[in-house]
Amino acid sequence: MPVGTQATVKAMTPEELTGIGAQIILANTYHLYIRPGHELIRRLGGLHRFMHWDRPILTDSGGFQVFSLNELSRITEEGVKFQSHLDGSYHVITPEGAVAIQEALGSDIAMCFDECTPYPATREYARNSLERTTRWACRCRAAQQRHDQALFGIVQGGMYRDLREQSAAELREIGFDGYALGGLSVGEEKELMYEVMEYAAPFLPDDQPRYVMGIGAPEDLVEAVWHGFDMFDCVMPTRNARNGMLFTSFGRVNIKGAAYAEDSGPVDPECDCYVCRNFSRAYLRHLYRCGEILASRLNTYHNLHYYLALMGQIRQAVAAGRFAEFRREFYSKRQGVQSFDGA
Amino acid sequence: MPVGTQATVKAMTPEELTGIGAQIILANTYHLYIRPGHELIRRLGGLHRFMHWDRPILTDSGGFQVFSLNELSRITEEGVKFQSHLDGSYHVITPEGAVAIQEALGSDIAMCFDECTPYPATREYARNSLERTTRWACRCRAAQQRHDQALFGIVQGGMYRDLREQSAAELREIGFDGYALGGLSVGEEKELMYEVMEYAAPFLPDDQPRYVMGIGAPEDLVEAVWHGFDMFDCVMPTRNARNGMLFTSFGRVNIKGAAYAEDSGPVDPECDCYVCRNFSRAYLRHLYRCGEILASRLNTYHNLHYYLALMGQIRQAVAAGRFAEFRREFYSKRQGVQSFDGA
Ligand SMILES: [Zn+2]
Ligand SMILES: [Zn+2]
Repeated sequence: MPVGTQATVKAMTPEELTGIGAQIILANTYHLYIRPGHELIRRLGGLHRFMHWDRPILTDSGGFQVFSLNELSRITEEGVKFQSHLDGSYHVITPEGAVAIQEALGSDIAMCFDECTPYPATREYARNSLERTTRWACRCRAAQQRHDQALFGIVQGGMYRDLREQSAAELREIGFDGYALGGLSVGEEKELMYEVMEYAAPFLPDDQPRYVMGIGAPEDLVEAVWHGFDMFDCVMPTRNARNGMLFTSFGRVNIKGAAYAEDSGPVDPECDCYVCRNFSRAYLRHLYRCGEILASRLNTYHNLHYYLALMGQIRQAVAAGRFAEFRREFYSKRQGVQSFDGA
Repeated sequence: MPVGTQATVKAMTPEELTGIGAQIILANTYHLYIRPGHELIRRLGGLHRFMHWDRPILTDSGGFQVFSLNELSRITEEGVKFQSHLDGSYHVITPEGAVAIQEALGSDIAMCFDECTPYPATREYARNSLERTTRWACRCRAAQQRHDQALFGIVQGGMYRDLREQSAAELREIGFDGYALGGLSVGEEKELMYEVMEYAAPFLPDDQPRYVMGIGAPEDLVEAVWHGFDMFDCVMPTRNARNGMLFTSFGRVNIKGAAYAEDSGPVDPECDCYVCRNFSRAYLRHLYRCGEILASRLNTYHNLHYYLALMGQIRQAVAAGRFAEFRREFYSKRQGVQSFDGA
């Protein structure tokens, strides 16, 4: 899912997104609550109409941003009190409030308000945090008024297997339309993240959507699907694009590099996207160095095309029963390429 | 002509430009000389191929930017010595050099290297400056190697009627493929600019293109056509767009305005462009306040559409012999609207 934090997937039009096969996007509840406000969006006919996007939208609950953008946020059983990162004004979001905001936005899939357990966290912290997340999930389910909106639960529990199992069991007891793994990609090693995905997937129903929040790099998506997950969101393709980092079938290309100054070839010779068909690496490097808006546009377009094409190939491979083979090929193409560059 | 300073019309793709009817764009010789360098562009197949634009390109001579971006530039009879605005390195551009750079870029129309007379300027300064411009024009004509590239002369002479006449006569004596009025829109009153256009147009051949450089606002284009000019370039539609200022059939809209916060209508109800068909003023205001790239994209798209549609209407009105009527209507629609807001 491409990320459209402020009711726009940065640098893209809705038509460009559908043109490269985006089926659903994510929008950030926290940002839209702060600006322009969920009630304004409701009055203007909801988020789909506001941003001219008629395919599904998933909204996060706002919990993650409340914590990550507000150092002084304060958690109580009731909810979270925080200051706006824009004007310092005070706000409280409760589980009931998070549901109401998402209902005003009119997304197709809403997320429960959760407490994202940081990393590292002690077992005691992680347990308290997951248990509060369960109680909040219960309140979110009870607060739902719109029945045209799906609601997903978020599994917490830090990096503790038994706590993840406990969290998943408690959420399944309440019953949701889909389940997400939260609290990953928060600074832990990739190996640890893959380990959690591996042991946690079986805790979730296999006939409902399984979503890993906040990942990731292309290899993270391959690993997550390998372990049984279906949905992902990450700012990486769009944010890295704006920083000049392009994803290709053979690894990553940093378009700033002097090596590309006179390179008349496309970003990725295996890519048939608009950018690769029409523009050279030399031109993209020039645009990037000049700080041109078109640099962000073309880089974003290519990166999202790469991600969506990758997911399309994964779906095909899974459907054809040859995903193990696909996964081997995926890595062999990147041999010798620095994959974990911390970007 | 939309302006594509650094081999891109800011925020637009080539396909979007052709989609709204752009027939020719302007690129800045000075900027491309400094970065990425004209020889690099030549080696990559020329500017058209570099930027994926297959319609005509006009390049300015670089003279205007050399003066406006470099306070310490020094003019001699030979040419201009200046420091790069990027890295402070020293460069010299001569009339012969300006032609060679434009030939390397491969534009369809090249401009003579001129000295843009500032405003105000004494009669003596203006005469010396125009006479040097004539000598440089002569050297540019002699330096031409490519005969698939048109070369336009630039009329100087400040705000002095007789000097403009002298300049035009000297350039016609040399003989060019088209003629431009330079040294306008450099800080003078609009009334004075219109006066110069009015008296200078008859000094130029009426069977060749007549071009006013660096204008302008929509009303400037109407006035320039009224006086007999055919070609214009200005950063106003693109730059103002990025600053949230939109041109409409009834005047200017500053999309930042609180009045648009919940305005579900289009920017211009008379406009049928992609932006006006699909997005509300409220959404454009939201994007602008968030500093989103899509704000620059949509605002630029609408403004360029407005300018190109205006020129299309002007051409139709001229062809139908009803331009005087068109001009009256143009102003009457804007009655009571602040037109000269200094933007
Ligand atoms: Zn591509
Ligand atoms: Zn429009």
